Amino acid sequence: MEKIVISVDTMGGDRGPGEIIQGCISAAKIARHVDIVLLGPEDLIKAELDKYENLPNIRIENALEVIGMDEEPAWAVRNKKQSSIVIGNQMVREGKAQAFLSAGNTGATMAAALLIMGRIPGISRPAIVITFPTRKRHVYLLDAGANADCKPENLLEFAIMADSYLRSVIKRENPSIGLLSIGEEKAKGNELSKEAFALLERSGLNFYGNVEGGDIPRGTTDIVICDGFTGNVVLKLSEYLVKEVFSEIKEIINSSISGKIAGYLLKPALKKMIKRLDHEEYGGMLLLGVNGVCIICHGSSSAKAIKNAVLQAARAVEDGVVAKIKEDLKGTVSVNG
Amino acid sequence: MEKIVISVDTMGGDRGPGEIIQGCISAAKIARHVDIVLLGPEDLIKAELDKYENLPNIRIENALEVIGMDEEPAWAVRNKKQSSIVIGNQMVREGKAQAFLSAGNTGATMAAALLIMGRIPGISRPAIVITFPTRKRHVYLLDAGANADCKPENLLEFAIMADSYLRSVIKRENPSIGLLSIGEEKAKGNELSKEAFALLERSGLNFYGNVEGGDIPRGTTDIVICDGFTGNVVLKLSEYLVKEVFSEIKEIINSSISGKIAGYLLKPALKKMIKRLDHEEYGGMLLLGVNGVCIICHGSSSAKAIKNAVLQAARAVEDGVVAKIKEDLKGTVSVNG
Repeated sequence: MEKIVISVDTMGGDRGPGEIIQGCISAAKIARHVDIVLLGPEDLIKAELDKYENLPNIRIENALEVIGMDEEPAWAVRNKKQSSIVIGNQMVREGKAQAFLSAGNTGATMAAALLIMGRIPGISRPAIVITFPTRKRHVYLLDAGANADCKPENLLEFAIMADSYLRSVIKRENPSIGLLSIGEEKAKGNELSKEAFALLERSGLNFYGNVEGGDIPRGTTDIVICDGFTGNVVLKLSEYLVKEVFSEIKEIINSSISGKIAGYLLKPALKKMIKRLDHEEYGGMLLLGVNGVCIICHGSSSAKAIKNAVLQAARAVEDGVVAKIKEDLKGTVSVNG
Repeated sequence: MEKIVISVDTMGGDRGPGEIIQGCISAAKIARHVDIVLLGPEDLIKAELDKYENLPNIRIENALEVIGMDEEPAWAVRNKKQSSIVIGNQMVREGKAQAFLSAGNTGATMAAALLIMGRIPGISRPAIVITFPTRKRHVYLLDAGANADCKPENLLEFAIMADSYLRSVIKRENPSIGLLSIGEEKAKGNELSKEAFALLERSGLNFYGNVEGGDIPRGTTDIVICDGFTGNVVLKLSEYLVKEVFSEIKEIINSSISGKIAGYLLKPALKKMIKRLDHEEYGGMLLLGVNGVCIICHGSSSAKAIKNAVLQAARAVEDGVVAKIKEDLKGTVSVNG
């Protein structure tokens, strides 16, 4: 197998470089065939690495600038040439790496991927894919926030990309595609979804039709397509809602002796359930449509989340998601006509 | 106190007229000052009423036609003059009732309210308000589905109506208004939300700024404003997600003896939590902006949900929400300029 190189921004993330480097070390131990390049100030990274045993598949690339969480994305990418985000994307562009991963400024990561990696020919708007765990199956939703305003053709592109991703990386055969709307019937929805429905219907994809909000946790379809505004609301609402329900249950358990006994009895099963619902188990969010693998992690990512995101990036590279999308774009109804 | 009359469509709802009539009976026993008019085929309703003691504040209005769940709303309202939905709305228009309530065809109920009750002058688009229970406070979100496509001015109208509703009926002082978006900063959002931000900012209302999906269950603001597409996705996603989490916990509890013991110990606290999260406790969805009180109930409404919805309608009438909105429309920056 050809060597895979993944460049990781150690300077993004709310928990500091130590947490990210720890996640990379864990991933490097599991994926021996993957080289991980840690981007950031060399001295700082070296000091962190000294805490661990030496690993042959970890190396450092010096990047002295940092793009802050509040910096204007496009400006920062154009002006901070020595930042980890810019250098990491350039490595992918130049073929020195196949994937870039960051838990830093999401806007800057997307802007850098767009400006430096570039888009896949035929894709006008890359989209963020998230994994939604349900009891039935994992549902993949896009766009989770890259494009606040979308055109119907963008939604068709999202569907084509997601179909490729699920077939090639997730290994799901003939994945079904639902269009997020406010009623099952074709005539229900907003102007955008109704026009997208017409495009999806004649796309040759396995189009299920409209799905509603409840169909996401219900696992009705493999893929759910929506604009980035709605998708981002779905992402943040569901993450917080689940967290809130469990935090209330935890409070109930801790509030009395009988609660504590019950908690003890339920612990293994609840732990399993929480693990299934924990987004950190699923790595990061994949930016589909750029000419390389780009993974966006939560700012609050733990070492575990970073580890899973690195492994996710490796799988996406191994399974050739970018090449697969390029190929599939030829096979479907032209997006532009 | 003046007599309040509420007309109820007994022919809507998936569980049949018996369930709805049972809910009305429960409400009639609690709200002795409220007259409830049951709309539907007289014989059928009489047969149901025979199961209960005679109540002085329950009466029947014969309505022989039924608008089915799948009928095209505007067409049905124009053509089925003898339907419970049309007659109920006409009673409000003619001052024979102050509120109408239905668990039937939502589209037809909205269309009838718009066409027959009419809109409040100054409101171009009525909106559906839902109650979102959080641990901090109840959050009121609109629009939950009346308007799939919105203009920025519609969102401002929603905010004005919600502010009136919360002050007059919910008795919340100076309610804070959040605009649903995909980032806290003013510049974040889609075209619609960004333009609405500018209108809300200079509206004189207690505008908090942008809120994200997670802020709804977090209870960040009293009110959350969004377009009806996003709001409907939020409604259906959150209802199903909470249901799903509890159904999984129930399965865990029932799957072993230790689980059953834990379930027994947690029962009172979990029951309380489920009750708080149960949308049936909060009645129906209020259609704000029409010239009368119109409550839309879930098709699956139980007698309990109907009872709570009737009581909610009575409160909305008592507290003069329609008059309050009319008054408040004069006080704020003109919606049309």
